[in-house]
Amino acid sequence: MSILVTIEHWNPDLWLERFRRLAPDLDILDAREPFDPRAIRFATVWKPKPGLLAALPNLEAVFNLGAGVDALVADPSLPNVPIIRIVDPDLTARMTEWVAMNVLTLHRRAGELRAQQARAEWRGLPQPAARAVTVGIMGLGVLGRDAGDVLGRLGFSLVGWSRTKQTVEGMETFAGSSELDAFLGRTDILVVLLPATPETRGILNRDLFAKLRGAAHVGGPALINAGRGALQVEADILAALDAGELAHAVLDVFEVEPLAKTSALWAHPKVTITPHCAADSDADALGERILAGIRDLIAGRPLDPAALVDRRRGY
Amino acid sequence: MSILVTIEHWNPDLWLERFRRLAPDLDILDAREPFDPRAIRFATVWKPKPGLLAALPNLEAVFNLGAGVDALVADPSLPNVPIIRIVDPDLTARMTEWVAMNVLTLHRRAGELRAQQARAEWRGLPQPAARAVTVGIMGLGVLGRDAGDVLGRLGFSLVGWSRTKQTVEGMETFAGSSELDAFLGRTDILVVLLPATPETRGILNRDLFAKLRGAAHVGGPALINAGRGALQVEADILAALDAGELAHAVLDVFEVEPLAKTSALWAHPKVTITPHCAADSDADALGERILAGIRDLIAGRPLDPAALVDRRRGY
Repeated sequence: MSILVTIEHWNPDLWLERFRRLAPDLDILDAREPFDPRAIRFATVWKPKPGLLAALPNLEAVFNLGAGVDALVADPSLPNVPIIRIVDPDLTARMTEWVAMNVLTLHRRAGELRAQQARAEWRGLPQPAARAVTVGIMGLGVLGRDAGDVLGRLGFSLVGWSRTKQTVEGMETFAGSSELDAFLGRTDILVVLLPATPETRGILNRDLFAKLRGAAHVGGPALINAGRGALQVEADILAALDAGELAHAVLDVFEVEPLAKTSALWAHPKVTITPHCAADSDADALGERILAGIRDLIAGRPLDPAALVDRRRGY
Repeated sequence: MSILVTIEHWNPDLWLERFRRLAPDLDILDAREPFDPRAIRFATVWKPKPGLLAALPNLEAVFNLGAGVDALVADPSLPNVPIIRIVDPDLTARMTEWVAMNVLTLHRRAGELRAQQARAEWRGLPQPAARAVTVGIMGLGVLGRDAGDVLGRLGFSLVGWSRTKQTVEGMETFAGSSELDAFLGRTDILVVLLPATPETRGILNRDLFAKLRGAAHVGGPALINAGRGALQVEADILAALDAGELAHAVLDVFEVEPLAKTSALWAHPKVTITPHCAADSDADALGERILAGIRDLIAGRPLDPAALVDRRRGY
């Protein structure tokens, strides 16, 4: 009974060390070294090589080492076993911190006040109440709902959009492509916490930006994306910013990560970049959560349904 | 039956126009013009000239056009009538927005990430969870409690300090000078929402800063003051920042306002300045609230006890 660790694009050594330290009783195998495929019952993965998991005849479940499973479910050879994503209260809380900070920073005009400070300029700026500003949240899963809860507590008006109709207290919700335009037309600050699926890839494009409402004191519509980089068309973000169709973009995720040194996003005065750290959870806490899931399966206990990936819908 | 408007340091015309527009049925008098002192039943004031209110024989109540009443109660000739301060949900919500934004901005290292962006540097920074950071709130009135409620929802650990012992859910509380050091020793980020009284003047000095705990990822103790400028010793803030005893100061209020162009605070890299705008409420909403209080008194209805100033304690 072994657990395989297969990680591409990150350094696997940190996760191997962590799992072995947290679960010295379990047999943790490194996919970069020779191993017996028949021994593997569980795989902990990040963007594994397509076909690798299909070669494990006794695989019982796949644990994804992050919230986004788009790379994983895109592998047509992915075996038909449960796929478990990370749903962690610590990750959720960190994402909500990041979203609340960026919505407040835009709403309270912190950039303009900082520029005034640099000029030793004492001048108040017109500032509406939060209730006069509508934050539109795309993606009403665990992350979108928690961010909405805090933003509502802060007084913002809220609308939400998701693939299928959701009911969220304190939020008017819209669903599917037929209601997307109505949602955008109500949105001043757009917060994106969608998964990347074939339907959502490139959804953050210039056509969409043009349909946002935007608030005058923020300078127009603003985009905050901490979902996935594949959702956004970065050339369109730059064009919309330069055309005044977007007032500001706060991006934690990018089409290609790390973001290339040559990207025009870095130096754009209307762009705030964080290096995919919006919800960098405590890695030990995540490791313990994954190991707890593996122990649940070994013991025959049920999994958290919110953590189970529906591979047909892609998240 | 007349209402006197007497305002120093601000332009009275805006408040006169507002009151006359919102209450065309009431007689609103401008203290800069001749008036019959015996006609005045109510005064709406900001830092009135000492002695002016004592010369109104039929005065029934004083409405302060802001939250801070320190200048008002310092007038020994202030007549013995109810003094009503502004307690407004809109003002409270704005203060909480400002406090939450600044705590999150410090906690999530936004300044460092912005500096990295300027260098096109993709690098995550160590980031503890909010629960590992303790925000200490000085002042547990309406503003301190509401800010604490949101900060607790965001996951921060909380301690609170006030003149007399308060019970606040989710917060360990301390009271009086005897428990101040214990409070400071638990505090990483200090949020000050105290009134200015003879006991609190200059309380934010280097001795106090030296007793703060501080969090490593924030670089040490941080000060966030949106209470009153008289609470802080600005020379001590600068000295503590330069000595590394304070990591950052976020100031909305100052010893003298507007802050002098020559102040070293403006250009200090560890200082964030906002021009006393943390809780700049919608003035029409405040005006309506004051007029509602006047109408309550005229009709013999009771006043909101939370809005009544206790002149002996000074707030």
